[in-house]
Amino acid sequence: MTITHATGYAIKDAKKYLDFELTKYELEPLEDDRVTVNVECCGVCGSDHHTISGGWGPWETKFVVTGHEVIGKVVEVGKNVTEFKVGQRVGVGAQVGSCGQCKQCKNDNEQYCANPVHGYNTLWPDKAEHQGGYSTHIRAQERFVFPIPEALPSVNAASMLCGGLTVFSPLVRNGAGPGKKVGVVGLGGLGHYAVLFGTALGAEVTVFSRSDAKKEDALKMGAKRFIATTPGFADDLKFEFDLIIVTASSSRLPLDELLSTLDVGQKLVFVGMPEEGLTNVRSQTLSGNAASLASSHIGNKKEAIAMLKLAAEKNVQPWINVLQMKDAAKAIKAVEDNSVRYRSILIQDIEPVKA
Amino acid sequence: MTITHATGYAIKDAKKYLDFELTKYELEPLEDDRVTVNVECCGVCGSDHHTISGGWGPWETKFVVTGHEVIGKVVEVGKNVTEFKVGQRVGVGAQVGSCGQCKQCKNDNEQYCANPVHGYNTLWPDKAEHQGGYSTHIRAQERFVFPIPEALPSVNAASMLCGGLTVFSPLVRNGAGPGKKVGVVGLGGLGHYAVLFGTALGAEVTVFSRSDAKKEDALKMGAKRFIATTPGFADDLKFEFDLIIVTASSSRLPLDELLSTLDVGQKLVFVGMPEEGLTNVRSQTLSGNAASLASSHIGNKKEAIAMLKLAAEKNVQPWINVLQMKDAAKAIKAVEDNSVRYRSILIQDIEPVKA
Repeated sequence: MTITHATGYAIKDAKKYLDFELTKYELEPLEDDRVTVNVECCGVCGSDHHTISGGWGPWETKFVVTGHEVIGKVVEVGKNVTEFKVGQRVGVGAQVGSCGQCKQCKNDNEQYCANPVHGYNTLWPDKAEHQGGYSTHIRAQERFVFPIPEALPSVNAASMLCGGLTVFSPLVRNGAGPGKKVGVVGLGGLGHYAVLFGTALGAEVTVFSRSDAKKEDALKMGAKRFIATTPGFADDLKFEFDLIIVTASSSRLPLDELLSTLDVGQKLVFVGMPEEGLTNVRSQTLSGNAASLASSHIGNKKEAIAMLKLAAEKNVQPWINVLQMKDAAKAIKAVEDNSVRYRSILIQDIEPVKA
Repeated sequence: MTITHATGYAIKDAKKYLDFELTKYELEPLEDDRVTVNVECCGVCGSDHHTISGGWGPWETKFVVTGHEVIGKVVEVGKNVTEFKVGQRVGVGAQVGSCGQCKQCKNDNEQYCANPVHGYNTLWPDKAEHQGGYSTHIRAQERFVFPIPEALPSVNAASMLCGGLTVFSPLVRNGAGPGKKVGVVGLGGLGHYAVLFGTALGAEVTVFSRSDAKKEDALKMGAKRFIATTPGFADDLKFEFDLIIVTASSSRLPLDELLSTLDVGQKLVFVGMPEEGLTNVRSQTLSGNAASLASSHIGNKKEAIAMLKLAAEKNVQPWINVLQMKDAAKAIKAVEDNSVRYRSILIQDIEPVKA
């Protein structure tokens, strides 16, 4: 008997984006390539706040149940699903579907499919609404479901599925590893994962932050250096870094100085998404060291699996606050106030997890 | 008997940047690692116009003899020079010196040395002035002197040394070759070389230009496609290109659209240097395909040698206008008017070439 409905904490008006309302709604159909997951816990991402507050524009769906860092149990599989069995513990991140046919989908770049179905506030091609993981159940294409290594506790794995993967993919695609120097700009949810995974990959990580406030945390996470971006900070760092990951969501970064610290031909990768643009980038700024200004969007399934394996092997411990799902508003407020250290996880409290 | 002076066509006032004045001046000393070249011909680069007209700011030297695409004969070598002999035909491009000690110099990135000596309007560390190739003689460190393959005519080789190398380096550093699709934005001196060398390397080249005016030329040079950047031009080209080289010196390019035509994780490389900045680049623009906005500065010696070898083997024929050196003002005016098709070469007319 196919599950037809889920119950979740929904926001119904972007002006009242802290007013979560327990709501029952119809799930999208269980197509042959889809898996239904009974949610055990769900991470809270900056995207959740940007979306429900309207910062990223009007919604696609009638209301929004956010949450795209889901850990749970498989409770149903479509008839073409081969990778998962009912009862298995799995994770689902910030994407639940793609076309499966395009160059990107065929080339392990499914996160860049031009027709993605996101973790929430999104429609399937048949216009069915998809809601997220502050809820009892979600559905996702098999391709976007990841097995979770037994050694990883659910609350630790949850926020890796978006926050972790978003930095893990550009780290590995740009060669972070032994002998490499990686700069991480900003120490929030994403930045803390960039330090943890950069270090786990064997790179030497330096954190750049506006003040010294998070220095102790950064060093505890594994960073070798912490640099406050006060005037002149880059003077002694020319050609130093092999990669810089910018996790700060600000358009007022000292970009020229940061770019000047890259070795020849290397990249500064934005994973933060400021709501406004970056103004006045000059090609001259980039030509002194052939630097690149780049961006990146989550990661592919292979990278997700490699990340979870590394996390289990190296015992990567995210810094998390665990709350009940009914406290979603508190968690969102902490994102807005920039007070979360460093990621919040919501535990299922609507109904017991099955299977 | 060491040569002490050169005679060149000098500009003495940025406001009168077409008033070339035949001037005798002292050459920098013949240090042990330097080579003196008797100039046979010299290409005319956009940089020459930017510099003498003051567009790139005030001068370093008392007056300016431009020219950094020099072909000539070696007439003297410093006592530590091992690679060249008197009488040998050589080329010198847009850089004549570097520190030789830094990470970049030791790592085949001498063009990114933080203490470069440029082709003109530049000082050696001891403050001696270096003037360029619209003259009888120039001096350069051995490292910045390139042997010229016998099969390459001097007038063909000259403008490869800056114009050619500036596009050849980002082409090879970013994998241009068989099976790769390269976009070239703008068809001027640099763009024409990007088409010629991109094609010679085996890549499929597409030229983007504001209008159809240069379509016939682009196809004759070897481009497979020519696309006028009219509204909607990028709609059918998403994820198409493996590399885009922007040779247009404008800050009003359709950057968002061009970036959207890159395959996942690929680069758009600026080699044109607009005098103003590029405004309003958004990290969102880059995240849809993990594109990079990059730049590049000339090339290293290994790349220069590889380029000249390829040009000789594949009979690469630049589209050039050959003038006498006394007609430098005409050539500069043609750069300013954007009427040169596609590079001007000045032939020595001050005194006969020796050796």
